[in-house]
Amino acid sequence: MDAAASAERLTAEKHAQAVEILREVDVDLWMLVGRETGDLEDPSLPLVLGTTITWESAFLLSRDGSRLAIVGTGDVENIRQAGGWEVEGYVRSLREPLRAALDRLRPGSIALNFSPDNHMADGLTHGMYLLLERYLAGTPHWGRIVSGEAIASRLRGRKSPAEVALLRRACAATEEIFAEVASQVRAGVTEREVAVLFGRAMASRGVRPAWDPDYCPTVRCGPGSPVGHVAPGDERLRPGTLLNVDLGIILDGYCSDLQRTWYAPEGRGDRAPHDVRDAFDLVLRAIDAGAVALRPGVPGYEVDAAARAVFEADGKTWDYGFGHQLGRAVHDGGGVLGPRWERYGRRPFELIEAGQVYTLEIGVSLPGRGFVSVEEDALVTPGGVEWLSTPQREVMVL
Amino acid sequence: MDAAASAERLTAEKHAQAVEILREVDVDLWMLVGRETGDLEDPSLPLVLGTTITWESAFLLSRDGSRLAIVGTGDVENIRQAGGWEVEGYVRSLREPLRAALDRLRPGSIALNFSPDNHMADGLTHGMYLLLERYLAGTPHWGRIVSGEAIASRLRGRKSPAEVALLRRACAATEEIFAEVASQVRAGVTEREVAVLFGRAMASRGVRPAWDPDYCPTVRCGPGSPVGHVAPGDERLRPGTLLNVDLGIILDGYCSDLQRTWYAPEGRGDRAPHDVRDAFDLVLRAIDAGAVALRPGVPGYEVDAAARAVFEADGKTWDYGFGHQLGRAVHDGGGVLGPRWERYGRRPFELIEAGQVYTLEIGVSLPGRGFVSVEEDALVTPGGVEWLSTPQREVMVL
Repeated sequence: MDAAASAERLTAEKHAQAVEILREVDVDLWMLVGRETGDLEDPSLPLVLGTTITWESAFLLSRDGSRLAIVGTGDVENIRQAGGWEVEGYVRSLREPLRAALDRLRPGSIALNFSPDNHMADGLTHGMYLLLERYLAGTPHWGRIVSGEAIASRLRGRKSPAEVALLRRACAATEEIFAEVASQVRAGVTEREVAVLFGRAMASRGVRPAWDPDYCPTVRCGPGSPVGHVAPGDERLRPGTLLNVDLGIILDGYCSDLQRTWYAPEGRGDRAPHDVRDAFDLVLRAIDAGAVALRPGVPGYEVDAAARAVFEADGKTWDYGFGHQLGRAVHDGGGVLGPRWERYGRRPFELIEAGQVYTLEIGVSLPGRGFVSVEEDALVTPGGVEWLSTPQREVMVL
Repeated sequence: MDAAASAERLTAEKHAQAVEILREVDVDLWMLVGRETGDLEDPSLPLVLGTTITWESAFLLSRDGSRLAIVGTGDVENIRQAGGWEVEGYVRSLREPLRAALDRLRPGSIALNFSPDNHMADGLTHGMYLLLERYLAGTPHWGRIVSGEAIASRLRGRKSPAEVALLRRACAATEEIFAEVASQVRAGVTEREVAVLFGRAMASRGVRPAWDPDYCPTVRCGPGSPVGHVAPGDERLRPGTLLNVDLGIILDGYCSDLQRTWYAPEGRGDRAPHDVRDAFDLVLRAIDAGAVALRPGVPGYEVDAAARAVFEADGKTWDYGFGHQLGRAVHDGGGVLGPRWERYGRRPFELIEAGQVYTLEIGVSLPGRGFVSVEEDALVTPGGVEWLSTPQREVMVL
């Protein structure tokens, strides 16, 4: 299947899912609006539309399955070619055709994409919200607006089999890249040099980094390297210390996000020393505890707590959530496996669903050695997790 | 100067401009907020910050010149390295450090980036607006919120000399690409084949298309090709018809946007026939009338009207605005050279300023031949326009 056909199939799957979800959440109409989506795009739009638009546009998905796009005339042909939408063009203003369409459809509720809590369900700008208010003032429609958070979250979170296959491929390609680069790295390299090797390995496969290329991958050599979203620096990998890498790629529109840890030996044939193996063992026990807890129907904070408890029993802390969803975006929004801290809003309270894909990640700084962490990617199934990555089960020696 | 130093200089120029603009519009504080900016980024943020952020963050620019970034701890080191900001990290929530900062700064007015009219001044999502309301409820600060549209528009619109130089380079590279591809094209090629040649010419120079690669460039062969944002198709260039291309590139972060028209001769040494030259002459007269009208202090709709009048005197119509601003984005927001149609909101009423960069574009379909258009890029100076492109003054023969 070529890329265009595959994209069309993904879009068609999401159209069908959207109708199911509208029925579940009892909403009549989901209205996505946008303009100049090449610059600022509602993250839900690529799920249901295979192209970008320029002028103010409204995409109306009804619970009866009908789909109407109202777009500027210059965008009409492009949307027609993308397929899956009845298309109506306008020249002077979106106002009249939008009001007319809503008058025809008579939705009892109209969901818009805004959410204080979930960035991936929050693609409507405040200015566009005010513009819609201006266009719909004096109609009964404006009083029927509700948040589309649940729709966007569920549509994004429930991976279809085609999406799972793409995520699995992205993980496999990432593991190939890890293996290729690790075979080229020895004590003495700098973080920046390691990052260059990863850049080449990605470019030669035609894949892109899944986040800001300035710090994708994040490379940490030894104990002096800061943890977080930091660009690789001049820190050099010394014998007896750790190389830690956080890498995500985008392959055919879907992301991976994995962390791996290697030990740079002091002599030939050395194994990782006890303190390193103990720290790695702690990380694995936390990952495993989280993986056991990760099941449909459980709120995300419980999974985080299961992993965190292992760390806390060892006197360690961890400043981030244990995992996030993964999909077309590396932080794919919706429920997180995170603590009930305000910065995660309501997201840790969301119940885990089968079909969602999460990262599981945790790490610890080991004095004199560096950062020990792993991050794996897993699909939630009715019975528990199914790994999309091949979990790292021991410290690799360079 | 290397790319990082150049980016830092651009950011520093914008920081200084922002202070000037805050004084002009009499606003105490401009507050940009965001999260996961790799997925959805306020278009103003790259002007003042040279990196992306993950967690909910607030960037506070005061009219006294101080700049404070409040970000999640994992982003702290990255923002410090980007430079230009005092940085404060938080673990659990943005709420308390944000309230504390505002209590210290005591701004009488706080501008946020929302605008119904200008998409490039509308980077705040509605959910983030609601989140700020939640965080600032019960403080005097929430009552002091105003739209930052004028700030974002002016900051984006006023190109510094360094920015103008980058735009000029993007235009020059685009003209090289036009010349290279035109030398390879003859009657018989399809639109898709022409697009592939452009793709190669861009790739070999390490530049990216300025809009959706599916229809950048837009290629039209002959009279059967639709006008608008449409992917190149199987239409074949026949002798005696026109090749028309709309291409924009991004070079070092700055865009070009140019249209060119060629004639495919029926025999060797043929000139373009009279009807083609007449249509091209009409287009040039409209471009020239617009260029004469394009001066500081004039509202954009007057420039559009000057060009449109030339077309209308000839019984022709034109469904779009005559020009838009150009910068880091190909449709760089702010005032447009467009008619007073609702779809352009208040933007045609904005007064043109020296230092802004606009496209000038108009075209006409010629029966039996194809689409005749040119698009040029120009800087507004106190005395009128200064071309950044080398205007096409006659129909080129392939």
